[in-house]
Amino acid sequence: MRDSLSPETREALVRAAHAAADAARAPTLRHFRQGIGADDKGAAQGRYDPVTEADREAERAMREILARERPGDGILGEEYGPLGGTSGLTWVIDPIDGTRGYLCGTPTWGVLVAVRDRQGPLFGLIDQPYTGERFEGGLGRARLAGPAGEVALRTARGRRLSEARLLTTFPEIGTPAERAAFDRVAERVRLVRYGMDCYAYALLALGQVDLVIEAGLQPYDVAAPIAVVEAAGGLATDWDGGPAHEGGRLLAAADADLHAAALALLQGA
Amino acid sequence: MRDSLSPETREALVRAAHAAADAARAPTLRHFRQGIGADDKGAAQGRYDPVTEADREAERAMREILARERPGDGILGEEYGPLGGTSGLTWVIDPIDGTRGYLCGTPTWGVLVAVRDRQGPLFGLIDQPYTGERFEGGLGRARLAGPAGEVALRTARGRRLSEARLLTTFPEIGTPAERAAFDRVAERVRLVRYGMDCYAYALLALGQVDLVIEAGLQPYDVAAPIAVVEAAGGLATDWDGGPAHEGGRLLAAADADLHAAALALLQGA
Repeated sequence: MRDSLSPETREALVRAAHAAADAARAPTLRHFRQGIGADDKGAAQGRYDPVTEADREAERAMREILARERPGDGILGEEYGPLGGTSGLTWVIDPIDGTRGYLCGTPTWGVLVAVRDRQGPLFGLIDQPYTGERFEGGLGRARLAGPAGEVALRTARGRRLSEARLLTTFPEIGTPAERAAFDRVAERVRLVRYGMDCYAYALLALGQVDLVIEAGLQPYDVAAPIAVVEAAGGLATDWDGGPAHEGGRLLAAADADLHAAALALLQGA
Repeated sequence: MRDSLSPETREALVRAAHAAADAARAPTLRHFRQGIGADDKGAAQGRYDPVTEADREAERAMREILARERPGDGILGEEYGPLGGTSGLTWVIDPIDGTRGYLCGTPTWGVLVAVRDRQGPLFGLIDQPYTGERFEGGLGRARLAGPAGEVALRTARGRRLSEARLLTTFPEIGTPAERAAFDRVAERVRLVRYGMDCYAYALLALGQVDLVIEAGLQPYDVAAPIAVVEAAGGLATDWDGGPAHEGGRLLAAADADLHAAALALLQGA
């Protein structure tokens, strides 16, 4: 259905996405570095999965905007239940991707907004309210708007695996088999850095790093990153080369050769 | 000798430190995210230790300022040879702490400037030019100046080990024994995050995290962080509780109880 969207609809989608990200800035910044406490959503599963009032406030603000601007679309968010739609389009939102980083005061968490159809994400935004950076991609757009102005997003090209810069949120996430597969790639690249959450995909789209590899992801973690990376010319698939927009394992690469090289090491994990 | 410093000298030291950090902003920002290449200083030792023209330009600019403002002081920097002094004071500078993060485009590297006597650091700055944040501590000062104004630096107090937030640049750095000791602490805290370099100590001083533990450090990695953390009320020692300003292993903690709890797990590593 993506090919049948009118120019007016495309414009409305982009506008609604920006409005939703705008709405998340005030609540996320108001609580940032203010000693906000976290509830543990994962306690019942024996793992720490923090959520804060900032996550909830921001998601409510985003849902309100989207329901008003795009009443026929569905909504899938991290903190509240899914909302069905009639248009065939679904908004996939994460008010704070990287709540752990947020709780530590790091400036690398992000607000994620994406809209998808059955095939996958059409358009996505990664917004970092503290640095004032917004990365967007899809529907013909691929750019960073930030304090220094606007920059086109374009992944780096032609770098070999042995020269590549790899980001991930590991080693906390993933099964032992996933960790072993990740290590096969990590051993062969030039440089590995951890802990960036969605900001890693933004840096890939900006041409600063070459690979992002993660596991244990949810649909709302991946929709906007996939849209931004693909719009910048990169590839984003699961660890077997298939679609990744339902979450799980994600391999994002700056170009096709690098994607193939990493895939060969991850496959079958 | 620190107790005999005149108010004029103290003021001159603070002024020179700020001037040196100011001088590093232009060269570090000019090359940031511009596809700058790196030389590998560590190739002869079989490890990757990148240095960029941004590191070298920034250190030259800082040395020039310090030699002019404080001609009797020594200088110890990451990229150029040590300069002896006559005053008993030595500047310890790192033009880009976290060159790997810098090469990946992350906003968590920093410019480090500190001045020390034989006992250790007297005053230090952690500057993040991209976010415009400057954390300073020592000689009666403890504050963050940033885009949102000024904030006093004060570590969090009274948090138990099981509630603590731990940052580090691991797992790339450290021997297997050091890694095992680190893991003993990591298993007991609430939350572990990686990859922050000097920004981790800034967040500790700001009360956002509770512990920073690293190994394999150089004197220029630790001088400014120690000054900032101590000025904010935290503790910074090696893994046996002794002075850490010569580098090696550093344990920085928000308060004395937390420091003791982490030390008990690290000692003898």
